[in-house]
Amino acid sequence: MVSDTSSAFRPSGVVTLTTDFGLQDPFVGVMKGRLLDRHPAVRIVDLTHEILAHWPAEAGFWLARSFRYFPAGTVHVAVVDPGVGSSREIAAVELEGHVFLAPDNGLLAPVIEGTGALEAELRRAPVCRHVTPEVLRRIGIGTPSATFHGRDIFAPLAAEVAAGRLAPHELGPETSDLIPGWLEGPVMSATQVTGAVVTIDRFGNLLTNIEAAHVLALPQPWVRVGGRELPMKRTYADVRPGEYLALVNSFGVLEIARAEGSAAEGLGLARGAPVSVASKTR
Amino acid sequence: MVSDTSSAFRPSGVVTLTTDFGLQDPFVGVMKGRLLDRHPAVRIVDLTHEILAHWPAEAGFWLARSFRYFPAGTVHVAVVDPGVGSSREIAAVELEGHVFLAPDNGLLAPVIEGTGALEAELRRAPVCRHVTPEVLRRIGIGTPSATFHGRDIFAPLAAEVAAGRLAPHELGPETSDLIPGWLEGPVMSATQVTGAVVTIDRFGNLLTNIEAAHVLALPQPWVRVGGRELPMKRTYADVRPGEYLALVNSFGVLEIARAEGSAAEGLGLARGAPVSVASKTR
Amino acid sequence: MVSDTSSAFRPSGVVTLTTDFGLQDPFVGVMKGRLLDRHPAVRIVDLTHEILAHWPAEAGFWLARSFRYFPAGTVHVAVVDPGVGSSREIAAVELEGHVFLAPDNGLLAPVIEGTGALEAELRRAPVCRHVTPEVLRRIGIGTPSATFHGRDIFAPLAAEVAAGRLAPHELGPETSDLIPGWLEGPVMSATQVTGAVVTIDRFGNLLTNIEAAHVLALPQPWVRVGGRELPMKRTYADVRPGEYLALVNSFGVLEIARAEGSAAEGLGLARGAPVSVASKTR
Repeated sequence: MVSDTSSAFRPSGVVTLTTDFGLQDPFVGVMKGRLLDRHPAVRIVDLTHEILAHWPAEAGFWLARSFRYFPAGTVHVAVVDPGVGSSREIAAVELEGHVFLAPDNGLLAPVIEGTGALEAELRRAPVCRHVTPEVLRRIGIGTPSATFHGRDIFAPLAAEVAAGRLAPHELGPETSDLIPGWLEGPVMSATQVTGAVVTIDRFGNLLTNIEAAHVLALPQPWVRVGGRELPMKRTYADVRPGEYLALVNSFGVLEIARAEGSAAEGLGLARGAPVSVASKTR
Repeated sequence: MVSDTSSAFRPSGVVTLTTDFGLQDPFVGVMKGRLLDRHPAVRIVDLTHEILAHWPAEAGFWLARSFRYFPAGTVHVAVVDPGVGSSREIAAVELEGHVFLAPDNGLLAPVIEGTGALEAELRRAPVCRHVTPEVLRRIGIGTPSATFHGRDIFAPLAAEVAAGRLAPHELGPETSDLIPGWLEGPVMSATQVTGAVVTIDRFGNLLTNIEAAHVLALPQPWVRVGGRELPMKRTYADVRPGEYLALVNSFGVLEIARAEGSAAEGLGLARGAPVSVASKTR
Repeated sequence: MVSDTSSAFRPSGVVTLTTDFGLQDPFVGVMKGRLLDRHPAVRIVDLTHEILAHWPAEAGFWLARSFRYFPAGTVHVAVVDPGVGSSREIAAVELEGHVFLAPDNGLLAPVIEGTGALEAELRRAPVCRHVTPEVLRRIGIGTPSATFHGRDIFAPLAAEVAAGRLAPHELGPETSDLIPGWLEGPVMSATQVTGAVVTIDRFGNLLTNIEAAHVLALPQPWVRVGGRELPMKRTYADVRPGEYLALVNSFGVLEIARAEGSAAEGLGLARGAPVSVASKTR
């Protein structure tokens, strides 16, 4: 991997938002107001605002899995920020022509670490920076509130980058010291890979940090989770209603599902639960 | 009705989305990313993402009732797709200058069948097509995932149509063999019309597939539903709190409501429940 | 305060929407369709659609607190409308280069009354109008439905104003007779201010109509709410988990919170509950 310091970022005008704010209150709407105020031509896409409060790992997981479906030149803002108001820094990551802005609390670790063994060899290295207070002053951000940096810092900052008035390399000095992720990456051996449940979708499917490539590398893979052994299948329809299965889902990760039911409820598992895949050659 | 094979579709750049994906997970956001990637000027409107899972009839009902409020030239994408990954076809319907894209599973039947007796005489006939695999290859859709055709097929396809790079008549050969709807259209006689509950709104009102024109054709109409007989009223305020009523709602269909309460809960009725309107001249 | 009758409104093309419609049904989507149909370049932002049904005070509170984060020239539409179908009027308010459209039911009172003592001296006076039936006819709004004025009146009206085809002063004659707000403004004395809970956010925090300026004017302020006395703190982190606190939040109002918990549940309080701040100099 070669660090690519010449900026490959050409703004597309698109900004995505990922938060734990929900949609009941006007917090997300107000962020959009500030984006439009600074960059009237911005096009804003909600990735999700239902990240589990204070679980940044979920936001990073979805960003790492979703950003390539957006045009190159997109700015991705993620605000899941248990430390808002403290002295935590602001992280900016540039990768494959996209820019990511988030609190430096481990949220962006899945983006930085990448999402697959093969991909890791091919892609450019991410460039990580800490946004400096000088940059915030330069774009006219005065004293932010203690509790709503999404509105007071991230929205104006993203607008400036999306408008092309602030280049990624101007955000701050490069660093290799971003806070690490909340979940260990999966641990691999010749015959087994062990990871964890990162998120649970609305259907109760358990999504893990185990990649398709990990699973495919094992002959006759079986999945161990919640005291059960599950076979790998291609789709939900390959088992009978009520049965559990494991599959590689449409985002390229190992998923534990229950046909026409909720695997999370049935297995009594939550985020962080361990999952392993082993080669069963007995 | 005369089939109108010369395309009346002039893209407005607007795309509507109707799914059962919910907003908790980033599935809808990722679809929007793909739309923007192929058609940067697209304007996207969420119709609803809370369609009851696996109840395409509800999506078709709302599309048929809603599409005329959008500019002519709009592309309406609906993905409620219990058969995703199977060999079901993709349906494209052109009607009154709008294009509809959906799995061919009966979802679009309410759009095709129309929403009123009088209207049916006036309007142009819908033109129905099956999208061919050649079209998908032509626009560079490789092997889609087995489970997320909203992202892998429908979003890129809609972007091409909305951008004007793919005309409706290029989508595939005309067909009269789309899968029929999940609900029988209402059955009419000189003194009675019988239909069903299609959807229940957030207030617990029961929305039916019985049209205003059906009701107005009957002298002194009374509604029979859930073992009760209800009078027709103009608005919710015409009865006392807690009382049930029937009215023609703002989308032009018969609705069963309970003043300041939930008719669905009070009557214990669900989607599919029969409703009839009879002339009460005794 | 000087009434500013020369219109300072220059349309930005942005329209915000605030309703109690929720996102389950396509009501909001259909409003957006009508906006795009009349003004293709409109940019629409959802402020919130989860206003408590029939509690317009909440909508006005959020609008008054949020509008300044949007570009000048924005049209703000709020539809919380228990009286839809009755003879209630339509209110239009122009303030600081923004236009607000809502049912005349007290919803806009917080916008008109302003959000702070100091601010009240500096800012221009709001200009209030009743929209005339002639204006609605002029823009081609025929007979609206009895129950969905968001779609049939407010969306087309907002589109005309946002497109610059209808100037604020053309909406109707000025009036000083808009319906008053549902909540009394806070009552102030030299040693105490008494207000009420206006809304409860998704975390269970109680947001009041007591302004930062009111609190700061009192030496050693203590908050009385739900039979308790609470100290003023700067952030949630200043107390231990489970403890209650009061703070001035990021929207500049007094908020009652419980660290890592729900103050609303813990105190058993709802919207409208009284809150007072007193100087505790004993």
